[in-house]
Amino acid sequence: MTILHQMQMSGNCYKVRLTAHQLGIPLALHDYPLMGGETRKASFLSLNPNGRVPLLEFEDGRTLAESGAILFHLSEGSDLQPTDKWARAEMLQWMFFEQYSHEPYIAVARFYLAYAPPDLREKMRDRAPEWHEKGSAALAVMDTHLQKRQWFAGGRYSIADIALYGYTHCACEGGFDLAAYPAVSAWLTRVAAQPDHIPLSRSW
Amino acid sequence: MTILHQMQMSGNCYKVRLTAHQLGIPLALHDYPLMGGETRKASFLSLNPNGRVPLLEFEDGRTLAESGAILFHLSEGSDLQPTDKWARAEMLQWMFFEQYSHEPYIAVARFYLAYAPPDLREKMRDRAPEWHEKGSAALAVMDTHLQKRQWFAGGRYSIADIALYGYTHCACEGGFDLAAYPAVSAWLTRVAAQPDHIPLSRSW
Repeated sequence: MTILHQMQMSGNCYKVRLTAHQLGIPLALHDYPLMGGETRKASFLSLNPNGRVPLLEFEDGRTLAESGAILFHLSEGSDLQPTDKWARAEMLQWMFFEQYSHEPYIAVARFYLAYAPPDLREKMRDRAPEWHEKGSAALAVMDTHLQKRQWFAGGRYSIADIALYGYTHCACEGGFDLAAYPAVSAWLTRVAAQPDHIPLSRSW
Repeated sequence: MTILHQMQMSGNCYKVRLTAHQLGIPLALHDYPLMGGETRKASFLSLNPNGRVPLLEFEDGRTLAESGAILFHLSEGSDLQPTDKWARAEMLQWMFFEQYSHEPYIAVARFYLAYAPPDLREKMRDRAPEWHEKGSAALAVMDTHLQKRQWFAGGRYSIADIALYGYTHCACEGGFDLAAYPAVSAWLTRVAAQPDHIPLSRSW
């Protein structure tokens, strides 16, 4: 069975679990603790030299890193990925937006403000205003888009929605107030109402 | 003609120019100054609510942001993108790696240390050790990969190489010593020797 090397609380790992669940692809989960540096040790670096989860390991030994690439690969040819060339470009646009303009602020604020040990939290505290400013800007960009559309790309639910849902739905843990983004809030409800949706807390 | 909204010194914009040039796709360049906040003004935000270049604007008014999505879209069906499903997944893995683990340190160090006005450079100077630590880690990951391979995905030159070349080849401007990464240095030479290669300084 394909192995997902993961951390349960990671939104990037959750995106892979959610995509696989909605596609009916079974995954064996290999869990790593949030702290302790397990993914920077030699045994893991031999699987992913970049030392990060999620990492997908196939039965034949091939490995694939980066949640965006994993979501794209798992969903090729399925209803979670538009076949239209332009819609696929828009889908990737939002997936790159998420990794560059959204995750580094919203996920990072969540990690340091809600999950990191006290000493690390204290060390990074002066970064919080920047995370909140730039993360809020990303949420505003999403809200503007969703004021006129139900989904992010191709007029239907796709892996672009899953990629953005991963850390948006739990942004409150990083100190973001989603009530300020009503179109985003309504979209979160639509995503959670999709068939075979699973919450972040559930393994598969 | 398709318009590329861009800044000439931006590696993300250069990737689009290089891809388009190698594919023979003409682009009309609309240049923005590096400083001055032009891309955060209402006229530009109406094109890209995220306020960033590169932005591609097609003759029919459609727009596409995010260099990774632009490269994917322009190169679909060309020799710059593998058709094999697994090779395409690897290609996207490296493109997401570049935007998440490479660009935020190597491009950002280059901007603040070589291009930003003195007051901004001074303000951000205490971030430099983090940029250098994490950017060097990204270069080491690339070097490990390239010690056994000529290219990043699918055994041939692709947009994954273009995406990583954009800011790697000018990393010295941000204080990185590429001599420490011999496999990366050899790969840079291979990329620059590809047909129809253009340097960062050239518009098209």
